[in-house]
Amino acid sequence: MGNGNLTMLTDFYELTMANGYLESGMKEKIAYFDMFFRKVPDDGGFAIMAGVEQFIQYIKELRFEKEDIEYLRSKDQFSEEFLEYLSNFKFECDVWAIPEGTPIFPNEPIVTVRGPVMQAQFIETMLLLSINHQSLIATKANRIVTAAQGRPVMEFGSRRAQGYNGAVYGARAAYIGGCVGTACTIADREYGIPALGTMAHSWIQMFPTELDAFRAYARIYPSNCTLLVDTYNVLKSGVPNAIRVFNEEVVPRGYRPKGIRIDSGDITYLSRRARKMLDEAGFEDCGIVASNSLDEYIIRDILSQGACVDSFGVGERLITSRSEPVFGGVYKLCAVEDDGTIVPKIKVSENVGKITTPGFKQVWRLFDRESGKALADVITLHDEVIDDNEPYEIFDPEYTWKRKTVTNFYARKLMVKIFDKGRCVYESPDLNTIRDYCREQVDTLWEEVKRFENPHKYYVDLSQPLWDMRERLLHEHSMR
Amino acid sequence: MGNGNLTMLTDFYELTMANGYLESGMKEKIAYFDMFFRKVPDDGGFAIMAGVEQFIQYIKELRFEKEDIEYLRSKDQFSEEFLEYLSNFKFECDVWAIPEGTPIFPNEPIVTVRGPVMQAQFIETMLLLSINHQSLIATKANRIVTAAQGRPVMEFGSRRAQGYNGAVYGARAAYIGGCVGTACTIADREYGIPALGTMAHSWIQMFPTELDAFRAYARIYPSNCTLLVDTYNVLKSGVPNAIRVFNEEVVPRGYRPKGIRIDSGDITYLSRRARKMLDEAGFEDCGIVASNSLDEYIIRDILSQGACVDSFGVGERLITSRSEPVFGGVYKLCAVEDDGTIVPKIKVSENVGKITTPGFKQVWRLFDRESGKALADVITLHDEVIDDNEPYEIFDPEYTWKRKTVTNFYARKLMVKIFDKGRCVYESPDLNTIRDYCREQVDTLWEEVKRFENPHKYYVDLSQPLWDMRERLLHEHSMR
Repeated sequence: MGNGNLTMLTDFYELTMANGYLESGMKEKIAYFDMFFRKVPDDGGFAIMAGVEQFIQYIKELRFEKEDIEYLRSKDQFSEEFLEYLSNFKFECDVWAIPEGTPIFPNEPIVTVRGPVMQAQFIETMLLLSINHQSLIATKANRIVTAAQGRPVMEFGSRRAQGYNGAVYGARAAYIGGCVGTACTIADREYGIPALGTMAHSWIQMFPTELDAFRAYARIYPSNCTLLVDTYNVLKSGVPNAIRVFNEEVVPRGYRPKGIRIDSGDITYLSRRARKMLDEAGFEDCGIVASNSLDEYIIRDILSQGACVDSFGVGERLITSRSEPVFGGVYKLCAVEDDGTIVPKIKVSENVGKITTPGFKQVWRLFDRESGKALADVITLHDEVIDDNEPYEIFDPEYTWKRKTVTNFYARKLMVKIFDKGRCVYESPDLNTIRDYCREQVDTLWEEVKRFENPHKYYVDLSQPLWDMRERLLHEHSMR
Repeated sequence: MGNGNLTMLTDFYELTMANGYLESGMKEKIAYFDMFFRKVPDDGGFAIMAGVEQFIQYIKELRFEKEDIEYLRSKDQFSEEFLEYLSNFKFECDVWAIPEGTPIFPNEPIVTVRGPVMQAQFIETMLLLSINHQSLIATKANRIVTAAQGRPVMEFGSRRAQGYNGAVYGARAAYIGGCVGTACTIADREYGIPALGTMAHSWIQMFPTELDAFRAYARIYPSNCTLLVDTYNVLKSGVPNAIRVFNEEVVPRGYRPKGIRIDSGDITYLSRRARKMLDEAGFEDCGIVASNSLDEYIIRDILSQGACVDSFGVGERLITSRSEPVFGGVYKLCAVEDDGTIVPKIKVSENVGKITTPGFKQVWRLFDRESGKALADVITLHDEVIDDNEPYEIFDPEYTWKRKTVTNFYARKLMVKIFDKGRCVYESPDLNTIRDYCREQVDTLWEEVKRFENPHKYYVDLSQPLWDMRERLLHEHSMR
């Protein structure tokens, strides 16, 4: 699925600013930007990083075509020198990012970009768009998969997605977050995400009777026979007809029926009754798929009520992250270079929660050597090293008297370099590797961080040098 | 912005069903499907139709490439006859749709497809995806524009959109719904939606002081100078610096300042104070732009509190329709042909609201000749004619004793033919025409239908012949 050239998918002000930097003699000025987010969607305890591969693809294809230049010239706002610069545009930035599938937390950098401010600023829109979208869906998918307690969850939402790649990249992100597959065929062909699906209600209605429709389907797909049983009446018609057709058309051909699907009504009640009917007919191995406006809350509820559901198809509430359809990643200036010296920049807001963390940074995750569990993230200056052979003191950056010394841990840098002076130095893992990595990494989080209501706040601390620097800048700022 | 070939952006079950129809000897079977929706997002009184042009584009490019066929063959579920059929796929359906920009209401067909069931079923995913997405955003934009009471609204949300064409088609739909422009540059280049934008906070931070940043900007863009005043302190620093720079760098060059932008804090308070400062400095003509997590509710509130805002930039809450990010359009079988006779089909749900309206239909809108206002929509059989030279009796399809005779009206068919036996017979109007048409058509709705809380329910009635037919099918069904 080609997206064409997305270079011009940028906020117009990125262009007016870039032209302005050039006009102001700041063509070579080096700036550092961080992408981070402030709040986990749905008040969850963590989010899942996703969308890096599509961002890399965008950067690789970044170039201004003749038609772009003509269009910009027609705006009568840009200098010829600037248009010339764009015509010969060559991406020169360094980029670090936390790999896809990693649990991420508020206020830590998840991407850092260093380079000429004209370029580092310019890529803001597509960086945020790619990572906000896929991180949103991966995070939502992970919640839904968690609620399903080991039962497979399928992504079924293409028809309600917000645009075509809302569907396709949404399916990709949902897979990273733990879904087992998708209804979206192109996502299978492009990314190898298993696509599955059987029939709509219209299939049943196209035949004189439900029984005829089931028979026709079972004859064609005996080895993969899941029947939709709620077109007329689940218990009086759908399940009895399904059992009859399993016996007449599936078993005699040497197969076992795969399942029935219930897409409406009281899933708990219907699934329990259907389970009993299937069991009594000797089809204990026939699964029950549920799929009607589901999300993590409804799945948790119906399972706690004893629903007999073996797998879930989740549509609009996953593909749009309906309960919270925005992942609020932002992109903020954190430093500039003056004659090669890194000068940290802070944005001080009257809203304390919006004060940025200045400087060129790295994020470390500390894991307990014994349990393997993640203990805390520590944001450090970029070249700082956390020596995990020594005890390490972490402290709350807001309530600095809350201190704790960590021992018997190992420390891992989270951000890896993906572009070096504009050259891609990172190869995206294949999607199954990302998905496995995501599961492993989510497993390193304590249960208290993973619960839906009032999750424990995972520690995201600042190193002492970084905290000192931020403190100094805050004081300097307040004395202005 | 090419999307590549989207033929395979289809739910996998559309393919298993299509193969099934072929295997069941139903290759030539003609079916009729309606797209309709059941509920207006945000409990509004109406929605805005959008996305038809992109759906048409999809159909025009519908073809299965060799790689698609290879992929499907690898699934080991499809017959060679079916793969051959797909290789030579030629779209043969008739399609009717309500034009973009038209106000639409629950339970009326907004698209009808007639053709071989294998094809009419197949296009479900992309039809729903295209129209659900853009109708959602056009509807939301129209609410926000209404709340702004004539003040221009800009779409600013690309960075939080759900995927790339979530941003681009979202900007298109927002423009149809009444936005005056977008921050999304590619939407301007591709669709001529005016793109605008000035500076981010990082621009201010890149200079030694706010004053330096304002000066640099004003020198480069004196004719189009809008300054972002909330980086440090709106009233103590931003507005005074802006006034100074307007006087020093804009006015002497023969221009008037365009505006200031406030992106945080208490918009009502800050805009009133800033207005006073600008007026006292002789800049009564300098606009104030507000842009911070706005939607129709917040805009209504701050205006009712007397905020002095001249235009709005609206981001994530528009581009994702955050308060209700799903437009629930569905696609249901409504008839089949048996030896050339149209046999209506009904889906009877235990939930009365989910019972479908059977048959091959048309939608008429009745307008009062005197006021020009829309009185009611009437769903009829497709070949029925409403003679607007005679009084016409409408009635509530649920409470049939609620009747009303309409006189002095004119009747207009809403659905127009867009494909005739697979050939496109409709030319999409240009976007400004659609946008103008939308405004005119929304103007035909009574204020009571347009309000946000408890809007009047606009009449969507059935003609007597259609009601009789539905009644007959319901009785036949209940006697099964």
